[in-house]
Amino acid sequence: MSKEITSREQDYSQWYIDLVLKGGLADYSAVKGCMVIKPYGYALWEKMRDALDKMFKDTGHVNAYFPLFVPKSLFEAEEKNAEGFAKECAVVTHYRLKTDPDNKGKLMVDPEAKLEEELIVRPTSEAIIWNTYKGWIQSYRDLPLLINQWANVVRWEMRTRLFLRTAEFLWQEGHTAHATAMEAVAETKQMLEVYADFAENWMAVPVIKGVKTANERFAGAEDTYCIEALMQDGKALQAGTSHFLGQNFAKAFDVKFSDKENKLDYVWATSWGVSTRLIGGLVMAHSDDDGLILPPRIAPVQVVIVPIYKGDDQKARIDDKVKNELIPALKAANISVKYDDNDNARPGWKFAEYELKGVPVRIALGARDLDNNVAEVARRDTKEKASYSLDGLPEKIISLLDEIQVNIYNRAKAYRDSHITEVNSWDEFMQVLDEKTGFVSAHWDGTGETEEKIKELSKATIRCIPLDNKQEAGKCVLTGNPSTQRVLFARAY
Amino acid sequence: MSKEITSREQDYSQWYIDLVLKGGLADYSAVKGCMVIKPYGYALWEKMRDALDKMFKDTGHVNAYFPLFVPKSLFEAEEKNAEGFAKECAVVTHYRLKTDPDNKGKLMVDPEAKLEEELIVRPTSEAIIWNTYKGWIQSYRDLPLLINQWANVVRWEMRTRLFLRTAEFLWQEGHTAHATAMEAVAETKQMLEVYADFAENWMAVPVIKGVKTANERFAGAEDTYCIEALMQDGKALQAGTSHFLGQNFAKAFDVKFSDKENKLDYVWATSWGVSTRLIGGLVMAHSDDDGLILPPRIAPVQVVIVPIYKGDDQKARIDDKVKNELIPALKAANISVKYDDNDNARPGWKFAEYELKGVPVRIALGARDLDNNVAEVARRDTKEKASYSLDGLPEKIISLLDEIQVNIYNRAKAYRDSHITEVNSWDEFMQVLDEKTGFVSAHWDGTGETEEKIKELSKATIRCIPLDNKQEAGKCVLTGNPSTQRVLFARAY
Repeated sequence: MSKEITSREQDYSQWYIDLVLKGGLADYSAVKGCMVIKPYGYALWEKMRDALDKMFKDTGHVNAYFPLFVPKSLFEAEEKNAEGFAKECAVVTHYRLKTDPDNKGKLMVDPEAKLEEELIVRPTSEAIIWNTYKGWIQSYRDLPLLINQWANVVRWEMRTRLFLRTAEFLWQEGHTAHATAMEAVAETKQMLEVYADFAENWMAVPVIKGVKTANERFAGAEDTYCIEALMQDGKALQAGTSHFLGQNFAKAFDVKFSDKENKLDYVWATSWGVSTRLIGGLVMAHSDDDGLILPPRIAPVQVVIVPIYKGDDQKARIDDKVKNELIPALKAANISVKYDDNDNARPGWKFAEYELKGVPVRIALGARDLDNNVAEVARRDTKEKASYSLDGLPEKIISLLDEIQVNIYNRAKAYRDSHITEVNSWDEFMQVLDEKTGFVSAHWDGTGETEEKIKELSKATIRCIPLDNKQEAGKCVLTGNPSTQRVLFARAY
Repeated sequence: MSKEITSREQDYSQWYIDLVLKGGLADYSAVKGCMVIKPYGYALWEKMRDALDKMFKDTGHVNAYFPLFVPKSLFEAEEKNAEGFAKECAVVTHYRLKTDPDNKGKLMVDPEAKLEEELIVRPTSEAIIWNTYKGWIQSYRDLPLLINQWANVVRWEMRTRLFLRTAEFLWQEGHTAHATAMEAVAETKQMLEVYADFAENWMAVPVIKGVKTANERFAGAEDTYCIEALMQDGKALQAGTSHFLGQNFAKAFDVKFSDKENKLDYVWATSWGVSTRLIGGLVMAHSDDDGLILPPRIAPVQVVIVPIYKGDDQKARIDDKVKNELIPALKAANISVKYDDNDNARPGWKFAEYELKGVPVRIALGARDLDNNVAEVARRDTKEKASYSLDGLPEKIISLLDEIQVNIYNRAKAYRDSHITEVNSWDEFMQVLDEKTGFVSAHWDGTGETEEKIKELSKATIRCIPLDNKQEAGKCVLTGNPSTQRVLFARAY
């Protein structure tokens, strides 16, 4: 019996939760809103992290680590940033527990161990980092400063959802400092390209690159660039953001540098981040009713080999082929392969289990197959099975993995492309959102008020103004006021 | 001018701080007791982490991630563990800030956003992890569970010191679950061996493997195994610990499994960890008055090449040799090499800078060297310089790096071995501690009271009872009571 998965049609949210829990990606925890990332989920995150980390280093960034806590006085220094995060932050007020005199064996907060200044558990690290940069930057020679951090952050969300919205999550946050606005904007855009590259070529998730409206900007940013993906239920997911912070943090933390002419100016900043939320997006972009579908380039296990045998003699022959030929050949090509010869489970159970876990390629090898010099190869994305000759099988598998990577991307892209709909009236707008779902491309009068009103009426937000957006005269879909371009709306995670 | 470093003789503590700060490893932060790990220090940590991570995976462990917070009720479930950490833990009591009505532009804790149950920022994760394991373990088939976590933890230390003792630090914590006590003990010892292997063969720091006394045990452990290293000032440093936790946490969190006979029993546990404190130990074990000395196997930059030239023509010839021959050859051998052709600094300044940073090998290449087909190669550990032929230079460098790794280890070992002194009287005990320093091997009557008394009188603690310790009759160095073995005392970090 394989584990029961709710179908997407039946209940999309439950299907997602089933995949995350039963696919071994994550679990609920005893801490409200926090989750446990299980070994299989963490292995996936490691693959994603390593790929991203290499891309950051290839673009000249280095890693560092800054404190978990932000003293309240620093937290509030950049006013907009503080305002944006104050409502959802965990606050450390004491540094000791003591035995509860009224309740033996229990502990209580020690009132005598109250901190002079409260510490905020970082929801994002601009404040603590820019306070540090003040000591590191004096002259243009210290710039640019290109630093990234892999860390946990905490945002006290009231309504949480595994991976997509959790009180604590893992992420990376880049924080760079530059001598000119132009350089900082170029960095912001470069990192957006890195994210788009990663999303499309590693996660096989097509994304739209764009800019957020003022309402949707990161608190403290001058401009927020983003990549937006589409899930199979037609809802959008913000998959990464890159912020041009102007001189806001430099001014809040008094970070100046002397330029070549010895003139003092505030430093220009960017920050950019992606998080474990990407895993949620990955699950929802590709998977089906039988389980996860993971793109080969980030799948923790790319190939699983299941032996089918009766008795030790058959097992020994299969072992010999697998351990001495197939596995070494696949490993030499840097393919992660698992040989599941666990005696306690039947092949059918294993097949279902690896489908659930989204292993891209399954090889089943029986004694008769060996006699015929073939193996049965099943691909997870299309569920097609074929009998392949054992001669040259590793090469075949390698090209099959590439093919799967491309196919998953193309499938997601076809879905996404067919779910961008231009509308020209409010009725159409609501109808597409309710029935067809996906991105709605519509004219908007450019005001925050209209944006807010549309959100109230439709629960759709402006996901982004696509980069290099076509300029065209039109009328706002809600107010009828003049508009110069269409923007992308969607209901979103 | 090179950066000023206090000499060891002048002020050992200040020397250490100078190296950490000026060597670019870490910086102080605005948060009391927390530090910033700077890019160079973090690159070192990444090298250490990657080597350890591979060793953990090679011994069958997988990574996962558990919540940062421990609800108070879970924190206090294992009584001894709670008692051990209650006095130094950061407590989250609120989840929101609001604008301070009395102080415009400032924020204050929102009294209406008080948590029903306080959350402890993890000082270690046994509680949250064993509470999770309860849901993961039902039968012997679920065992062993071999999980590791890379994470930040917080212990509210009053007296902090960069890397060695900070309120927040980075570490890994393994948490394993087993069906039998024997298996758990074997795991505990296996991980101690992994740590010793890493310390000696990667960090080039010789360590003594041993067991802690009851007084020095991890809070909640049945037995704590440790590796102890010796710093150049004769003080010991605990470099890693591996705990056999018995069934303490399984009982506290009610984690039972059914064995093959369907009989229920509590699960057996281990935990083990090393932290960024190792970096402090690394610095103090090897470095000298000119700066850091890093073992090649974990040095972020293993080889630096400094061109010495006048004019573009000479520079172009050197560039050609370095970029087209030396660097590709060294990179092909997986050696991390930096070519510092920064025009703004003179070679002498660069030499001092890379000595400060502990780069194991420096190659200086001038135009005249090129004519003579040689390069000047300087090793950081001995400061010896030699002229090497450019023919076969990469191979020479590769073997030189190995030689340096061995030499650094041997030097530290010679120092350590010459600083283990057997003493048989209290006078001798104090004299060795005060004058010769290092480990003192002395008889002890085995009681916690005597151990405590010795600590009060001498500031020395029992670092460990070495594994496979020789049994011999003797008299306690303080009380004269009978003793069956010598143990290792030292003053320690």
